[in-house]
Amino acid sequence: MTLTTLPPPHHEPVAPHDLRARVTDVLLRFIDDQDQILRDVDPELSTMTTALREFVLSSGKRLRSTFCYWGWRGAGGAPDDEGILVAASALELLQGCALIHDDVMDSSDTRRGLPTMHRRFARWHRLGDLHGSPEEFGTSVAILLGDLCLSWCAQMFDGCGLSEAAISRAKPAFHQMHTELMAGQYLDLLGPARGGGSSERARLIIDYKTARYTVGRPLELGALLADGGPELRARYAAYARPLGEAFQLRDDVLGVFGDTERTGKPAGDDLRAGKHTVMMDLTRSRATAAQRAVLDALFGNPDLDRDGIGKIQDIIRETGALASVNALIEEHRTAALSHLTDSLLETETQATLTELAITVTNRDY
Amino acid sequence: MTLTTLPPPHHEPVAPHDLRARVTDVLLRFIDDQDQILRDVDPELSTMTTALREFVLSSGKRLRSTFCYWGWRGAGGAPDDEGILVAASALELLQGCALIHDDVMDSSDTRRGLPTMHRRFARWHRLGDLHGSPEEFGTSVAILLGDLCLSWCAQMFDGCGLSEAAISRAKPAFHQMHTELMAGQYLDLLGPARGGGSSERARLIIDYKTARYTVGRPLELGALLADGGPELRARYAAYARPLGEAFQLRDDVLGVFGDTERTGKPAGDDLRAGKHTVMMDLTRSRATAAQRAVLDALFGNPDLDRDGIGKIQDIIRETGALASVNALIEEHRTAALSHLTDSLLETETQATLTELAITVTNRDY
Repeated sequence: MTLTTLPPPHHEPVAPHDLRARVTDVLLRFIDDQDQILRDVDPELSTMTTALREFVLSSGKRLRSTFCYWGWRGAGGAPDDEGILVAASALELLQGCALIHDDVMDSSDTRRGLPTMHRRFARWHRLGDLHGSPEEFGTSVAILLGDLCLSWCAQMFDGCGLSEAAISRAKPAFHQMHTELMAGQYLDLLGPARGGGSSERARLIIDYKTARYTVGRPLELGALLADGGPELRARYAAYARPLGEAFQLRDDVLGVFGDTERTGKPAGDDLRAGKHTVMMDLTRSRATAAQRAVLDALFGNPDLDRDGIGKIQDIIRETGALASVNALIEEHRTAALSHLTDSLLETETQATLTELAITVTNRDY
Repeated sequence: MTLTTLPPPHHEPVAPHDLRARVTDVLLRFIDDQDQILRDVDPELSTMTTALREFVLSSGKRLRSTFCYWGWRGAGGAPDDEGILVAASALELLQGCALIHDDVMDSSDTRRGLPTMHRRFARWHRLGDLHGSPEEFGTSVAILLGDLCLSWCAQMFDGCGLSEAAISRAKPAFHQMHTELMAGQYLDLLGPARGGGSSERARLIIDYKTARYTVGRPLELGALLADGGPELRARYAAYARPLGEAFQLRDDVLGVFGDTERTGKPAGDDLRAGKHTVMMDLTRSRATAAQRAVLDALFGNPDLDRDGIGKIQDIIRETGALASVNALIEEHRTAALSHLTDSLLETETQATLTELAITVTNRDY
């Protein structure tokens, strides 16, 4: 079963639209406040806030804030508390830093079909006929904007309005989330540089960059803010780990077989970059000598064309690696869901986390 | 009077050696703790902590932690409190981020005579015979390490051990310090790109990047942590602003006339980069037509040689710009010191802040 034959999800998108809209709203309000402050210093500074505002508006998923919010709800937090919305939204700024800096590190041209931050500012430099290298200027501004997102993440979280006790309870996990993200990024950088690399390492990176960072820590933060106990937090962690794996595996499949219009990423980029994934590991370990020769010639080849992409896709299918990965996704998702099936969680949270698990592993979410 | 004829300071270096050593110690202990955690995830991660440990050891000034500590002392904080040492030391990690990212943005090869972080990791990549571009790898790791410093700054500050109330009191200023730094960096980037630029803008950048970031906010943070009142904090701000200006002006003079061995920066870099400073503004506004023609040809010329540097230096002297800047430094320093002369501050703090003001504006500090 290939990805494109998967049935469309029969339920509503996971992050209820009103939660997503409210997170966007909170982020825009924060940026507007900062804009006021910065404008008073120098009107030129509003170029920074304008860029971040557009970046926030172009972001669609809000996975981290969604998991944080439901982590809170599952621990008995009030549905309409403004404080948790602000705290949860802050996590999107950490993700903003990760994306903006990632795009610099990968020299990516586009994200979600729009120019990346460093490209935008290179263009702005060019259009304004400024001095110096547009590319260097773009990169420098993107580095600064990522730094600003990272600083603002902590500022929003600290100023969310929940009690000092709640914030202090959550702070160690908040900081761990940062370190884990950067550690995961470093290992992710080192993998292709070292070449080869083990499946074990690939799974470690998934655990840090995806399972914990996207699912586990956000849920935990919500729970801690609502003073949820250790049993609940252990349950969240048990749900997050396999779900993160399933999510990353789906992402890897989409990186090779996904539709550019839906993923927002140019097709074949992961193959050109020689991105190390569990799926490619499986493919290589099961490949015949002839298939391996094709992989050696094409995988990681920066000049890979549409024809070459097709050849690698065929090998991934023929070796059964694609089917195995799809089965693994199913398996991990089932494992994740098994941790939701008792009375520890209140019904609405249980239903939402179930839906989230299905949706993020089913579709290009 | 040129810089090199200034008498050596007749007193001990400002940051008492034991305070500096203790700050280094606190930073190394924090990094060691993180190293333990990261090593357990993957031994490869200790490359990050090793690099940051060496970076911390190579840093000498500790201005921000020193001002933060004395801001605390001036507000009546206990001399031997471990918490203030940790909180003050955290500011060095913000500075670490600023330096590491600055060096990437400026493509600098060296800092304090040692290879910059991105160059170190490019070299590490080359020596390890890794795949891909050593330069891109070095830049990527430096971006991540700067991010890590920024995250760890907040983590150290939050975990300093002072009371929750003290930390909450200081947090808004802590966050403002971050935003101001990044705003200052952005304006600093935009200046040369726009070309020209006003003295007003140059002074604004000094206010944000130097006066507030290096002196004012650190003092304020110390005061807030010790629950110092608004009158004291206003006094600190009044001292910080002219001192920051004097400090930056001295830095600009050193950037053109300084001895590489003392400044750790290659001579002439600021002239090659066409760095906009108050001194260069004054020089240009007073230059004859002939001198202006020389400046147009040489200032901002990336191929500037020793002979060209000498020619610009002569013009700066001949126009009287150097003398004026030295007079300005004197004037600002006097203004800063005038805010220390009453009984609001306890004696030891008053003496130390006086010494600090003299030392940082006198020598290549």
